[in-house]
Amino acid sequence: MIERFPAVMEIPVQWGDQDLFAHVNNTVYFRWIESSRVAYWTQSGLHDLMHPRGLGPILASVKCDYKKQIRYPDTIQVGAKICKLGVSSVTLDHVITSKNNDAVSAIGQSVIVLFNYQKQHPIPIEGDIREAFEKFEASV
Amino acid sequence: MIERFPAVMEIPVQWGDQDLFAHVNNTVYFRWIESSRVAYWTQSGLHDLMHPRGLGPILASVKCDYKKQIRYPDTIQVGAKICKLGVSSVTLDHVITSKNNDAVSAIGQSVIVLFNYQKQHPIPIEGDIREAFEKFEASV
Amino acid sequence: MIERFPAVMEIPVQWGDQDLFAHVNNTVYFRWIESSRVAYWTQSGLHDLMHPRGLGPILASVKCDYKKQIRYPDTIQVGAKICKLGVSSVTLDHVITSKNNDAVSAIGQSVIVLFNYQKQHPIPIEGDIREAFEKFEASV
Amino acid sequence: MIERFPAVMEIPVQWGDQDLFAHVNNTVYFRWIESSRVAYWTQSGLHDLMHPRGLGPILASVKCDYKKQIRYPDTIQVGAKICKLGVSSVTLDHVITSKNNDAVSAIGQSVIVLFNYQKQHPIPIEGDIREAFEKFEASV
Repeated sequence: MIERFPAVMEIPVQWGDQDLFAHVNNTVYFRWIESSRVAYWTQSGLHDLMHPRGLGPILASVKCDYKKQIRYPDTIQVGAKICKLGVSSVTLDHVITSKNNDAVSAIGQSVIVLFNYQKQHPIPIEGDIREAFEKFEASV
Repeated sequence: MIERFPAVMEIPVQWGDQDLFAHVNNTVYFRWIESSRVAYWTQSGLHDLMHPRGLGPILASVKCDYKKQIRYPDTIQVGAKICKLGVSSVTLDHVITSKNNDAVSAIGQSVIVLFNYQKQHPIPIEGDIREAFEKFEASV
Repeated sequence: MIERFPAVMEIPVQWGDQDLFAHVNNTVYFRWIESSRVAYWTQSGLHDLMHPRGLGPILASVKCDYKKQIRYPDTIQVGAKICKLGVSSVTLDHVITSKNNDAVSAIGQSVIVLFNYQKQHPIPIEGDIREAFEKFEASV
Repeated sequence: MIERFPAVMEIPVQWGDQDLFAHVNNTVYFRWIESSRVAYWTQSGLHDLMHPRGLGPILASVKCDYKKQIRYPDTIQVGAKICKLGVSSVTLDHVITSKNNDAVSAIGQSVIVLFNYQKQHPIPIEGDIREAFEKFEASV
């Protein structure tokens, strides 16, 4: 399943990621999801395309559905791919898989708005920026 | 608005809660939301009612919508109240307000399943457990 | 004891600060110590004095000795005061006290170097900068 | 240098490990150091030896000296090896190296007390426990 995600990051579970319940704490999943968003941004070339123009992403919303507990020791993979490319916003789907379980441990979703920091308003996703999204998605 | 939430926790923003963008990192909001869930559980008496019976909550899903950036220094309040009391699951609404902005900085939602850890299955929310939810909600 | 520290911050323990051992995880103490360093810097006026000149602090070393476990729920106070004011570096003593225990839970120490970011070298602590340290220390 | 450490863990730097100064925050180093302590404990067989007897480690003190900044993206290695094996306590040396810099980014030190949780007092490091330390150290 993770093969269909153009941006994937592999991260070892650290002992301290666990909480009192002896499983990875719910907030750690959002750190991993964030890592996959950043991986998407840099590996797709979007960062290099947008940053010099004063454009960048703003996180509007993020969620996570927990499917199976993750425990230490383990290594997870977290992926990001487009669910929906809107006028000014992108919805990314995320999946977190565990090497121990060989199963989907969690699924997530981020909503990102593309923003002009100088003019302080959202920008339309068009031209070479839209192409960069489409090209990166087509790479898998 | 926060006055309508039966469980409220007040937490100072720490400098290290900020990320590269000089605002509180998105994952920190989930630590705060978690704190309000635990405050709900203990202040409502649900923990004392359920724990001796081998019953407890499992987090199935959590989300956060970011409305306004939070920066250091500031103090936030985070609240939890019932959105929907289902057969075996509870949906909690959360709000995070900033003392600096005097505004809603973020809203969140948690879905929690009540679980029998010995029998390893969800339990119906009924009897004194349902009453504890209703009584705590009526306290504001 | 905390009264002799010119910079003090009060922070509630969050449930998620705990680890598998049901006490506050050792890394959380360093977040608190960091918060007291920043409080020292801003409340003493050092930030306002140094920042416009392109000067700032660099953390060279930090340590923590754990005396008594801290558990949720509790509220801690963390303080910072000068142990030694060197030529280019400052050693700060820290103390972390628990409201539940009414005792010292941990003591820490930070070594900070004052740095000229443009010239990329340490600066001597003299003139109004040294005075700001001395004045702030004398305020308790 | 890291080759001389019997317990080594490799961890990718995550974007969110950075703070406002665009380098990895000082607290993250202590999470990595903790991970190397746990790796030492499990890989040496000490955990399996001590846990069934109600014995375990308690962290008395930890420190970190920062040598070179670490930035995202990078991958670090963190190691643990004995500095001093005392009567009831062990001092571990840690090193953190960066793949980007090919250099030592930080060095750390942990002091751990071996403890009988039932009797609530420190235990002497002797017999098969001392041998497990010595054997693991001799493995590199």
